[in-house]
Amino acid sequence: MEHKVAVFRKEHFNAAHRLFCAEWTTEENLAVFGPCANPNYHGHNYELIVQVNGVPDPKTGFVINTKDLSTIVKEEIVSRFDHKNLNLDTDAFKNLNPTAENIAIVIYNLLRPRINKDLELKIRLYETERNFVDYPA
Amino acid sequence: MEHKVAVFRKEHFNAAHRLFCAEWTTEENLAVFGPCANPNYHGHNYELIVQVNGVPDPKTGFVINTKDLSTIVKEEIVSRFDHKNLNLDTDAFKNLNPTAENIAIVIYNLLRPRINKDLELKIRLYETERNFVDYPA
Amino acid sequence: MEHKVAVFRKEHFNAAHRLFCAEWTTEENLAVFGPCANPNYHGHNYELIVQVNGVPDPKTGFVINTKDLSTIVKEEIVSRFDHKNLNLDTDAFKNLNPTAENIAIVIYNLLRPRINKDLELKIRLYETERNFVDYPA
Amino acid sequence: MEHKVAVFRKEHFNAAHRLFCAEWTTEENLAVFGPCANPNYHGHNYELIVQVNGVPDPKTGFVINTKDLSTIVKEEIVSRFDHKNLNLDTDAFKNLNPTAENIAIVIYNLLRPRINKDLELKIRLYETERNFVDYPA
Amino acid sequence: MEHKVAVFRKEHFNAAHRLFCAEWTTEENLAVFGPCANPNYHGHNYELIVQVNGVPDPKTGFVINTKDLSTIVKEEIVSRFDHKNLNLDTDAFKNLNPTAENIAIVIYNLLRPRINKDLELKIRLYETERNFVDYPA
Amino acid sequence: MEHKVAVFRKEHFNAAHRLFCAEWTTEENLAVFGPCANPNYHGHNYELIVQVNGVPDPKTGFVINTKDLSTIVKEEIVSRFDHKNLNLDTDAFKNLNPTAENIAIVIYNLLRPRINKDLELKIRLYETERNFVDYPA
Repeated sequence: MEHKVAVFRKEHFNAAHRLFCAEWTTEENLAVFGPCANPNYHGHNYELIVQVNGVPDPKTGFVINTKDLSTIVKEEIVSRFDHKNLNLDTDAFKNLNPTAENIAIVIYNLLRPRINKDLELKIRLYETERNFVDYPA
Repeated sequence: MEHKVAVFRKEHFNAAHRLFCAEWTTEENLAVFGPCANPNYHGHNYELIVQVNGVPDPKTGFVINTKDLSTIVKEEIVSRFDHKNLNLDTDAFKNLNPTAENIAIVIYNLLRPRINKDLELKIRLYETERNFVDYPA
Repeated sequence: MEHKVAVFRKEHFNAAHRLFCAEWTTEENLAVFGPCANPNYHGHNYELIVQVNGVPDPKTGFVINTKDLSTIVKEEIVSRFDHKNLNLDTDAFKNLNPTAENIAIVIYNLLRPRINKDLELKIRLYETERNFVDYPA
Repeated sequence: MEHKVAVFRKEHFNAAHRLFCAEWTTEENLAVFGPCANPNYHGHNYELIVQVNGVPDPKTGFVINTKDLSTIVKEEIVSRFDHKNLNLDTDAFKNLNPTAENIAIVIYNLLRPRINKDLELKIRLYETERNFVDYPA
Repeated sequence: MEHKVAVFRKEHFNAAHRLFCAEWTTEENLAVFGPCANPNYHGHNYELIVQVNGVPDPKTGFVINTKDLSTIVKEEIVSRFDHKNLNLDTDAFKNLNPTAENIAIVIYNLLRPRINKDLELKIRLYETERNFVDYPA
Repeated sequence: MEHKVAVFRKEHFNAAHRLFCAEWTTEENLAVFGPCANPNYHGHNYELIVQVNGVPDPKTGFVINTKDLSTIVKEEIVSRFDHKNLNLDTDAFKNLNPTAENIAIVIYNLLRPRINKDLELKIRLYETERNFVDYPA
């Protein structure tokens, strides 16, 4: 669609996590996840970029007001994950391994109901500046 | 097309602007645009990334010479918008709200005639490092 | 002092400005300031880094709580300059040329009374990623 | 595919190169490639981002383990190109102009056999922060 | 000393931590440290810049070989803190609040014996891109 | 001096180099410089930050006009080193090992005569984002 514009808003949260599979032994977890399986957790500064695609409103010139988008992201994501232990302090990762892939999918599913259905939504999540993911691909 | 490559060139310009809708009252403008509606303007360091997609020339190995692309962007965009007031000093935004969305569309339309028709064109515009847009989406 | 630590907090504001000397003609202003003298203003995303030096408190481990420092910077600087025209909307630059040098000095003088006298204060201000200043040097 | 996630891993290598077309005269090369044709070479810090798209494994939560991806990139790309002269020290560019476009295609072709066929692969290569390419586009 | 050069090497580690003062109640800790006192920890991508000042060796042109400096930092700091819980997994912060200030001092004290006495040492530690410290100031 | 301000201007150049000591054997050079001694050279995107300290002029508000500073840096440094082989194409490094330390000292000595004697000068040179130097320290 030539007339659609993508709007991006960047937010961040800092959290602890560990990666492990409950069905596996400690050795199996270390073999797959290495130091990311540390039982006492480690952590990251997560940088989150939320993308919303749509046709700009002719009066405002906005696809979505980034102030509103920022408010939604803070309400749904930052307040839920910032300065938290993803494994212990959140419902989302009680039974789901908090890999960057899964965190991005969870964020997408939390934001999707808050964004107008006519607008496409996409998530980019930086775990570090060297490791990051997009969902959907 | 597996054999197409996207080439990106980054340029920048610094400009003043304000966001407002001429049909609305001051109160309505403030309600929608907040401090961005300040009548005396504010400003940004705009970072512009121009993307051109095509098949590299077998002799040069270039989709497009980035020196040439840089020259085109400076002639059409930087010379027009850098150190300007977008609302007052440019024809493009005399009657168009200079949101990031609209600036990206204007830049696309200014550059499109200068780029070979066989090449696809896409614009990314950073208003700040936290707010940016792509056109087309 | 080997035991002093420097603490840095980064904030930002977006503003319009123009550079000119009221005693000079338009031609003289253009000769010195070039497009920065544009009468209709241009603008920047200013990145501000406030540095506070002191000995960490033995109980908290803080030289200064960066949450408190952030609050002070928002009260004194961001609320005053963000989304403003520095020349028209602020007392500080009614009669002072808003160069990066002068903005940094003004910011220092606004923050100095809000920071404990035992702590040293230093300002870094990015006008763009290519032009920035420190005060005091 | 709504359920696919893109995983990105960033690596880097520093290399010398020159751009030129063996069929052309020195003058023709300078006309097209400018200082990039300098016979004694110049160089870059290349930043490489490898993107792999797929459905996360239900147990690990990984599309691909980024440790494994990093190892593959170091074995195939960094060990081959880092601290090398691309024109003189590598087979890939003996008869191929080492433009960013061609380097990205070569990297894609070197990595493709090492990545599971069910996963899509995409390369982003920064020659400088102002010039970069994606392959495939 | 006009002839001294400062050499900087950047490394990184990802860790979990919490801020709290054992002498205080939970309420007092929350009042001072806010969400940083979360009992289940949060985490950061710490970026560490180690600065070494001295006169370059006339033969090598090096103040210190940055490969050697990198090795020292990995042995003393990264292997100790990366993918760890600073409060639980390290001796250094068993009884010391892991603020950025204290982490920088601990890093300085760990590295100081490994760097030649004729060379000055300074630490910069980024807890986030918005909060960072230097030691000594 | 409380009233002095430091002004910084960022420029860049891309160059090839190799590190080696002419008095040493190939083996000795490899032992000290590793892959940086590659006889066919490698290269970098050098980022250069020139710092000038002084008291702002009361009329202009400038310590130094950054446009003038940029012109001086382009004339003395960028035109000399950009898209060059530092070892082969420059007088400065015919008999001097082009380490970051030595390049920074050479840049300082080239710029010092072009900057007013009342102003202090300092050079920061990034060889990569992980390795950089300041001169004087």
